[in-house]
Amino acid sequence: MATTSVSSSFVPLAASACVAVSPSLLHHRLRCSGQLDTGFVFRNKGIRGVNWSRRSVVVVRGSVGAEEEEVAMGHKEANWVEFPKLSPAGKHLMETVAGMMDKDLADLINPSETDPDVRSFKGGNGEGSVTLRAGRAGSKIDFVLGSWLNCTLAFGTLNIATLIAMLGPEADSPHLLFEFIQSGPDNLVLVLDLLPRKDLVLNPEYLARYYEQSGLEALRQTFEQHPQTQPFLTSALYVRSVVSPTALLYKVSGEGVEGGIDSVIADLVEPTAVKVFQTWVDSYKNLGQAMDSDAVAYMKNRDDLIKTKGVEVDLSSNMPRLFGQEIADRVVAAFRKGV
Amino acid sequence: MATTSVSSSFVPLAASACVAVSPSLLHHRLRCSGQLDTGFVFRNKGIRGVNWSRRSVVVVRGSVGAEEEEVAMGHKEANWVEFPKLSPAGKHLMETVAGMMDKDLADLINPSETDPDVRSFKGGNGEGSVTLRAGRAGSKIDFVLGSWLNCTLAFGTLNIATLIAMLGPEADSPHLLFEFIQSGPDNLVLVLDLLPRKDLVLNPEYLARYYEQSGLEALRQTFEQHPQTQPFLTSALYVRSVVSPTALLYKVSGEGVEGGIDSVIADLVEPTAVKVFQTWVDSYKNLGQAMDSDAVAYMKNRDDLIKTKGVEVDLSSNMPRLFGQEIADRVVAAFRKGV
Repeated sequence: MATTSVSSSFVPLAASACVAVSPSLLHHRLRCSGQLDTGFVFRNKGIRGVNWSRRSVVVVRGSVGAEEEEVAMGHKEANWVEFPKLSPAGKHLMETVAGMMDKDLADLINPSETDPDVRSFKGGNGEGSVTLRAGRAGSKIDFVLGSWLNCTLAFGTLNIATLIAMLGPEADSPHLLFEFIQSGPDNLVLVLDLLPRKDLVLNPEYLARYYEQSGLEALRQTFEQHPQTQPFLTSALYVRSVVSPTALLYKVSGEGVEGGIDSVIADLVEPTAVKVFQTWVDSYKNLGQAMDSDAVAYMKNRDDLIKTKGVEVDLSSNMPRLFGQEIADRVVAAFRKGV
Repeated sequence: MATTSVSSSFVPLAASACVAVSPSLLHHRLRCSGQLDTGFVFRNKGIRGVNWSRRSVVVVRGSVGAEEEEVAMGHKEANWVEFPKLSPAGKHLMETVAGMMDKDLADLINPSETDPDVRSFKGGNGEGSVTLRAGRAGSKIDFVLGSWLNCTLAFGTLNIATLIAMLGPEADSPHLLFEFIQSGPDNLVLVLDLLPRKDLVLNPEYLARYYEQSGLEALRQTFEQHPQTQPFLTSALYVRSVVSPTALLYKVSGEGVEGGIDSVIADLVEPTAVKVFQTWVDSYKNLGQAMDSDAVAYMKNRDDLIKTKGVEVDLSSNMPRLFGQEIADRVVAAFRKGV
């Protein structure tokens, strides 16, 4: 079936071992045909807000509040992961969230033990970096991952920046998945979600606890109603099943906006990403519930499938084409090791 | 939270006991404010196909093939459920599928025992009909349901037509949910899905068997790419969790098309609905797998939640406002009885 087989006419998008889930989001969508085709037609939406994003210069600061600003300052010292290939606003966004992650999880995760040749590699059509940090023994965190990939493809340059936090079986709080994909100077794809650990149909209490009562839907609606966004629907059905009903899966365009995509990143994407991250922090710190051994085994099985399917579907099939087999093997091994 | 509380400023859309799942799809969306607001902005899409739906008269026949035509003829004799309030093309569509359902399930379901005062009722702002038919003892079918509702509201007339087939625990095949909602002369909302019986994340084989290998995604993409459609995203998170990744959740507009909405129904909606129905028939006849007693209990629990949450969220809160408490109680009781 067209949506499950990888045709040679598609650029194997993929990303990083890191991107346990997210590369599927694109892998049939970026055609190696001189232009970006993310598969779903960008629909015209008028610029409704006259004063929307009227800026005369490229924006490098988001409209974050005082607390986030402080964190944003702090991350420059931490820099466990950097995003050197992104535009100024994209770089600021990713480093802000990475800095918050470093600060909020300080007591729960170890320094990275990822091999230098995974933290920095070049090969095939591009270069990249994958950094993993294992959760401390007994902590709620399984591992966190930060990565950037930069590939030169037929249609131009592809940048993928990723932050993931997968939790352990101590409690049932959602995983964090944040992927920022730029494939041109004026648009991006955002994948930002708290991935459910349980079947939401069978667990309406879980849906209420983490998604209905958390304000995530209001954030999603802000995107839905924004004139510069369009829903993004990956062709990978498994990924569509993995994400939550409040997932931010959107294409974002800078077209027609003064300051272009960087302005929209600063005004819309960064403040939203910060709020989603804070919601995730609240989720793992305050809302997690312990489970009996059967429930833990069940959830662990589910978590493993998310990781395995991600690796199977995305990395194993796509990374070799982008970076060569040797780098792909190295990154997959690092991902499986998780430290 | 805004998305879960029913504000008095919203018309309680609801529908029928029937609509175990679907009324949520609208219940915050149809405002009693003189116009239809389904919450998600209809985005402008140019009419790309010059020859699309060029018809000089209102279309009352879909572009169905010979087999479906035969079935369509047949249903006139069966008429276990009719849709008297729909436009000609809408009526043809729903009666075609109801006829196919009657024919394909002939050996598996009983004649309806639904009370006359549920099969025809008037009250509040409208009238309607709900017909249930129980699966025969030992058959794969739990029950099927057909219904129509017609309500006069501040913004105009609302028509909801529904066909549902819920399966029993003999096998794991998906349920069928088909809802057709017309709230104005030139647009509709389509809800058409095979509802999964299992957690798709934990059961990738199930996802592959029923959704990836079935052609359903190609049908969804036809809708996605059609110039007269827009994605429809219900505000009810539970419903968004219940549907599959290939669900057809779309707003359909007749604007700018010769023949209006009826032309689009005949050319796009009916052929697609027929194919989805045939896919469902293949699913329950040929693809179902038996389960051990633990798996059956697990799935039954999940099925019950889908029904219960539907009733709780939709019927119990919304039907009384549309049709009065007495009718609401009657319909809910009939739904629970399921015969």
